[in-house]
This record gives sequence, structure tokens and C-alpha cells, in this order.
Amino acid sequence: MSTFPRSYPMSGGDDQHSYNNNSSYQTRQCIIEKLDLPLNSDLGTFRIADYGCSIGPNTFHVVQSIIDAVKFKQLEGKNETSLMPLEFQVFFNDQPNNDFNTLFITQPPSSEREYFSAGVPGSFHGQVLPRNTVHIGHTSYTTHWLSDVPENVDDKNSPAWNKNYIQCNNSIEEVTKSYKVQFTKDMKLFLEARAEEIVPGGLMIVLGQCLPDGVPLLKTYQGILVDTIGDCLMDMAKSGLTSEEKIGLFTIPAYFPQFSELETEIEKNRSFTIETMESVRHPLEDIPLSNHFLISMFRAILSTIIKEHFGEDVIDELFDRVAKKLAKYPIDFKECEKNVTYFILLKRK
Amino acid sequence: MSTFPRSYPMSGGDDQHSYNNNSSYQTRQCIIEKLDLPLNSDLGTFRIADYGCSIGPNTFHVVQSIIDAVKFKQLEGKNETSLMPLEFQVFFNDQPNNDFNTLFITQPPSSEREYFSAGVPGSFHGQVLPRNTVHIGHTSYTTHWLSDVPENVDDKNSPAWNKNYIQCNNSIEEVTKSYKVQFTKDMKLFLEARAEEIVPGGLMIVLGQCLPDGVPLLKTYQGILVDTIGDCLMDMAKSGLTSEEKIGLFTIPAYFPQFSELETEIEKNRSFTIETMESVRHPLEDIPLSNHFLISMFRAILSTIIKEHFGEDVIDELFDRVAKKLAKYPIDFKECEKNVTYFILLKRK
Repeated sequence: MSTFPRSYPMSGGDDQHSYNNNSSYQTRQCIIEKLDLPLNSDLGTFRIADYGCSIGPNTFHVVQSIIDAVKFKQLEGKNETSLMPLEFQVFFNDQPNNDFNTLFITQPPSSEREYFSAGVPGSFHGQVLPRNTVHIGHTSYTTHWLSDVPENVDDKNSPAWNKNYIQCNNSIEEVTKSYKVQFTKDMKLFLEARAEEIVPGGLMIVLGQCLPDGVPLLKTYQGILVDTIGDCLMDMAKSGLTSEEKIGLFTIPAYFPQFSELETEIEKNRSFTIETMESVRHPLEDIPLSNHFLISMFRAILSTIIKEHFGEDVIDELFDRVAKKLAKYPIDFKECEKNVTYFILLKRK
Repeated sequence: MSTFPRSYPMSGGDDQHSYNNNSSYQTRQCIIEKLDLPLNSDLGTFRIADYGCSIGPNTFHVVQSIIDAVKFKQLEGKNETSLMPLEFQVFFNDQPNNDFNTLFITQPPSSEREYFSAGVPGSFHGQVLPRNTVHIGHTSYTTHWLSDVPENVDDKNSPAWNKNYIQCNNSIEEVTKSYKVQFTKDMKLFLEARAEEIVPGGLMIVLGQCLPDGVPLLKTYQGILVDTIGDCLMDMAKSGLTSEEKIGLFTIPAYFPQFSELETEIEKNRSFTIETMESVRHPLEDIPLSNHFLISMFRAILSTIIKEHFGEDVIDELFDRVAKKLAKYPIDFKECEKNVTYFILLKRK
């Protein structure tokens, strides 16, 4: 396993992907339709895992949605229930450097919680829970994070050098290839680990964003914004506030595959059947986008990783410059291609 | 359940009760002799819980001792083993305000760990894990902490008022009674919760300190030291650095029962058999005790709770005064009564 610290906690919490308004409907429906486990005391404990849970509060909403759906399902099949009510145990997984203290202090108090709670520190690119113990796994906006910087993208002498771009925007073919190799490896590890952990008949829900087929990241507003951040870093290098050398070595280890690319990677794992793979409405679609909002969001997402590489001081200056640049050349959201928000339901064979 | 924050993390870690030199022998032997579970893949995951684990490193040593013993036992009964090696899962339990971040960052890396690790936030006076899921439970130097301040001990108008003493030193009968009521209640809750969680045939190991029968706390060096801390607080009140009123309201929610008292409380729970209940050598017995060492130890144990009540500023002044007082009137360890360090092994019926 790589020891790269893939986890970059968002400094502003994870409100940007507010789950409540969005995927809880799909989650509920898919559990009611597809969960095919005996929901009685023979099952023992019903175990749920949220992989890459961050610090909340989204993960608490997710978990509650899942439990509500399982209980609804249990009531539906009344004759299967026994006298002992089902006990739920929830595993909140994230990297060891995630702020579990905040997670534990802010979770609903035990008197208002229908489940036993446990934090599981560790990279979800490896097994973090015992074999055959999880009934429903869930992960939300996590699998685009890579376990390591792709090979050669920070090597000036390689054709896969990502120049002064700070992320794969699909403008250099060799760079895209290198990112894709890493993504393929990571998805393989992720799915293999989940296949170990999830019981036969158990479900794995994967939510996230990818690109529509044939669309490069640089045509989406996310791509444009990250490239703008890169441009502003270059401006700062010219002013002596950082160096081109440093920027050449900086890489955000995140990769957004195209929809069919993602599908291919998932199909490669033979332990799961794909029950559902569809694009859903992203909560941001309901909010009129503004350049200002976008900057706040990306500042929250990227602050930690930028600080780690460039130091604490650059942040304010950098995002001031981004704001000024976008004030001058605002992103035209109508002209941009849109990322796809996907909802995937896998069932363990 | 009480919401009283019973957890007072020691500021200096938990080296004072270094487990390595001490109880690992008993732990190992008792598991080898008394564990009577099928140690093959039928069992599924082998689950261990350490209740009141603090931040480490002791809890990691404890857990490793337990796993080593189970594996030894498994090899002994070779014909019972199957092709699938046993997977271990360890639940580290403590109050939600315990520093789990430190626990997770300092634990052995997954490549050197033979178990899946999970943190479980919650008071062990209630159920924190699902029914029938724990094979070996363990707790070390925790059950003297009460879930709440005993009734009336901080009420000036009650016969159970503890005056300016800051802990139950057994000098006032009504105070001892009130502490005992709380202790009885807490032990009951603790054992009932463990009885839910531990599988039939599973073991619960309880380590800690109590008083020998007939000995009041004030005759032990621990009692003398805590009373000295109380005296120094009173001196500080006279100098206007705190107030008598404040001291009258301060109570350390810890109670050390006498050996047979503890035994009675444990016997009341009919879900366990007492397999072993014996006094063992405490690691401190091997260290020549000094007043200086004792002050450091109690400063580490009590800083958090004292700060919470009296404020951050009093600590240095207070322990300076304690040091001066003990320099003048040193504790004569030979004259003191000794606490009993006990080792209890319970088996779930």
C-alpha cells in the first residue's frame, strides 16, 4: 500500500455536497428494491460502512438514510422479522489523519442514535474491516482521490510531465494516460477490498462525479477554475512569492474519468454485479452558480493540499488573485460542459 | 445514562501503569487456560474490545498480548484450525472526548498490525457495541472512575458533604456511603453492558486497584497525596488564589472499594462466572517510590479535572505547593498501607 497521505480534509466541512437534498432518495429506493438479505436476528448485527466519511455532518445523514431504508424494508417483509430487533453498527472510515475527534464529538448523542458507532482509520484502497462483515457500504465523492501522485507527471524530463498545470485537465495525452494508470490501479484496490468486506448479497453504493464521454476536464467549470488557480500560482512565481520549480512539482492527486471509463473499471471486478449506474442531479444544479461561490468551494477543498506544498502564507494571496482574475474574466457557466454526478449500486455476488 | 464527562485524560499519557512488565503474563495465561471458543473460521471475526483505552501506548501492548495468546491457543488445538486464518478486529473504546486522533496516528501501522482497528466513542457504563459480538473484553485502571459525582457530597447542608476533602478518603461515613452507592450503580451498569456485548464463553478481563479489606484510603500514600493536594488548595484559598466555596464544590469522581466490596458487586451480576480474582504485583512495586515521582504521577492523572474546575492557572502553583509540603513532611512509604492491584477474569455464561 502506498503511504501517500491522500486525505485532504476540506477546511470548510463538506456542505458543498449536501447529501440531504440529493441522493438520499436514490439510496432509499435502491436499498428497498435491491437489498436481499434476511433482515431478522439470524443476521446478527447489521453493519454499515461509510468509506472516506470526512468529519460530518453529511455522513450522519447518509447513515440515517440507509438505516431508515433498511428498517422500512424490514417492516415490509414482516413475516421475516423476529422478536429481537436488528442492531445496527456503523463504521466511519477515513484516513488516520482525518479529524475523528470532531466526528465523534459532533455525531448525534447515543440517546438519539439508532446505531453503535465506530471510527475506522485507514486507507480505503486496502481492507479496513474483516472479511464478510459489511452489509451495506457507501462512499460519496471520494474515489476521484488517488492514493499517490501518478508516475512522472512531476518529472520535467518525462513526456508525462504536467508542466505548470496543477491537475490533469486532459490537455496533454501522456499526462492523462499516467493519471488513468493510477486511477485504474486505485479503483481495482478499492473494489477488491470492498469485495472482501461485503457479505454475499450485500450492497455497495458509490456516488461521485465524472466527465461525460468525450469531454476533457478543461471544458468544465471545475477544470477552468483549477487551471485559473494554476495561472495565479504562476503569476505569484513571477512576483517572487513562489517558484515555477515548486509549481512544476505540485500535483493534485485527483482524476475524473469519463463515464464509460469508470464503468469499464468497475466491470473488471467480477465480485460485484452492477445493479444501477446512472447519472443523477447534483445538488449544485439547484443553486444558481456564481464565480464567488465556486471560489469558496474550491478554497475549502484545496486549501489543505496547497498549504502542504506551498506553505500557509500563499492561501489568502492566491485566492485573492483567483477572485480578481475571475472578476475580470468570469466563467460563463452556460458555455461550460457539465460534470456528471453518478449513482452506482453494486451487489456482492 | 449520565452525561457527566467522566473522562479525564491524563496529560502525561499512561506510562504510570506500564502494562508490559506487569499483567501481560496473567492475561496470556488466563486466555490460554480459560478461553473456550472454537478458534476456527466458523467463528468469523475474533473481536477484542479495550474499554477506557485512553490514547495508548498501553492499549496497543494489551491488545497484542491478547492476540498472541489467542494465536498460541489456536496453534495448540491444531485440529480445530481451518484453512482460513482467524481475522482479528479490535475496538478501542473511550469517552467521546478522548483524543482518538492521537490514538489512530500513533497506533502501529497497518502493515505491522495483525488486526483491524476501530475507535468506539462512548461511556462504558452503557452498551457501546452490538449484542453478542465481543470475544475478549479488557479494561485496565478504569472502573474506579464514576459516571457522576456521588449525591450530596458537594452539598454543604447534607450529612454526606465531603467538606474540603476533594475525594472520598473514608474519613466521613456518610460520604463513603454516597460514593459507594454511585460505585455500585456504575459497576452494575458496566457489567450489564458487557454481558450484552460479550458472546457466551467469551472473557472479560478487569484490572485495577482497590483497598485491602478494612483499610481506609487515607492510610494509603494515594490517599495521603490527594489529601495533601486538598490542603494546598485550602492554603491557596487563604491566599485568595481560589475560594473555599469552590473547593467545597470540587469532587474527584473516583472511588476505591475494598477487595471484598468489589467482589460482592461483581458477584451480583449473574451473567458471568468469576474465573479468577486475585491480587497481583503492581509495576510500581518494582520502582523505589519517591515523593517526587508520586507528585508527577498525580499531576498527570489529575491536571485535566483540576483545570476544569479551578482554571488553567492554578496547576503550577498548586503542584509547587504540594512539592514544598512534601519536602517538609515527606510521605513515609514504609508506614503506609498498600493498595491492592487486582486481576479479575470473568467468563460469560
